[in-house]
Amino acid sequence: MEEEVVLLSSWESPFGMRVQIALAEKGIKYGYKEEDLLSNKTNLLLQLNPVHKKVPVLIHNGKPICESMIVVQYIDEVWKDKSPLLLPSDPYQRSQARFWADFVDSTVYGHGSKVLFSKGEEKEGGKKGLLESIKLLEEELGNKPYFDGDNFGFVDIALVPAYSWVKAFETCGNFSIEAECPKFIAWAERCVQHKVSVSKTLPDQHKVRNFLLQLRKKLGVD
Amino acid sequence: MEEEVVLLSSWESPFGMRVQIALAEKGIKYGYKEEDLLSNKTNLLLQLNPVHKKVPVLIHNGKPICESMIVVQYIDEVWKDKSPLLLPSDPYQRSQARFWADFVDSTVYGHGSKVLFSKGEEKEGGKKGLLESIKLLEEELGNKPYFDGDNFGFVDIALVPAYSWVKAFETCGNFSIEAECPKFIAWAERCVQHKVSVSKTLPDQHKVRNFLLQLRKKLGVD
Repeated sequence: MEEEVVLLSSWESPFGMRVQIALAEKGIKYGYKEEDLLSNKTNLLLQLNPVHKKVPVLIHNGKPICESMIVVQYIDEVWKDKSPLLLPSDPYQRSQARFWADFVDSTVYGHGSKVLFSKGEEKEGGKKGLLESIKLLEEELGNKPYFDGDNFGFVDIALVPAYSWVKAFETCGNFSIEAECPKFIAWAERCVQHKVSVSKTLPDQHKVRNFLLQLRKKLGVD
Repeated sequence: MEEEVVLLSSWESPFGMRVQIALAEKGIKYGYKEEDLLSNKTNLLLQLNPVHKKVPVLIHNGKPICESMIVVQYIDEVWKDKSPLLLPSDPYQRSQARFWADFVDSTVYGHGSKVLFSKGEEKEGGKKGLLESIKLLEEELGNKPYFDGDNFGFVDIALVPAYSWVKAFETCGNFSIEAECPKFIAWAERCVQHKVSVSKTLPDQHKVRNFLLQLRKKLGVD
């Protein structure tokens, strides 16, 4: 059967980037539909993800799959015969990969969003939380090249899109993530240098920053 | 190899109940250590779950696994030869089960917590959010006996512990979930009647209510 794979996403969405990286790692060809988050949401998005109304949505042979890390697991399971495996095969290692990907979801992007879109105490809390969570991730990484040792995989895919948002975080938070978390930056640069799936997916940090500054204005933060 | 399985949990924790139901479904024997959430956290808990410091923690052959739905997936994967399968075997159905379990996590317990532990507008928002999310789940359930059709599984395990908290929600929120969401209550009662794993795990609703009223006093909500 001919596979029909279409990704509905937005270029600046770190969650969409995860799916793009996973598809590229597996070598899956797909169509791409851009959803402009500065405009109204399209009927297609509202129809395919009526619960959360968010990108990314992967449409595989007409069926929609939502929530980025659920999509990444879906990709790993549907194309399980294509290497690389994105999740380790050992159940304990899989549980640990899920734990840390979940940690990224429940900390990094939430705190980062406060750095970008809030003010005063809430913003300071976001900066503190963002640095603390990245430092915990640095500890978990230790001296390994990637979170799963020599294999680029699930946790790397969850976290590395945040690297494209670093300049935006630094500008809005008036702090240096590079100075505070050099191991995180070194890991992210390793991903970009060694993984074409990452270097082809991640947008330029300045382009993301300019887009987010524009979004701040639209939301009335500035 | 002799398997050593120990669960660290608290009797009233809906997240701990998920793991107990999953272990019972698979017929896994395990030891149980009670963590009293009205007292200080034990060193064992802090050592086994240093990131979140929360129950449940499953300790399998000395290794800790945290986060309830990650533990349920771990149980399904480690004991994959023991029926029933908790997640469906088809990748698309798996993604949908993960989506709805994730929806339960990001809505039901958060809103429920506001009904129990907040006041004024925040509490009203919690009541509204709780009913809206249960109604969406009722729509997803439709006329099936369980979320995965005839098979009791992943989404049922995610949601059914909330049934033991219903009396507490109703007392604190001064509303009737049964009147608003009769299909949810009928589904929960079906789980209790037909699944020994559920009837043996879920504590009495009045006992949970009394415990949570005590916790409210301790937290100064009353």
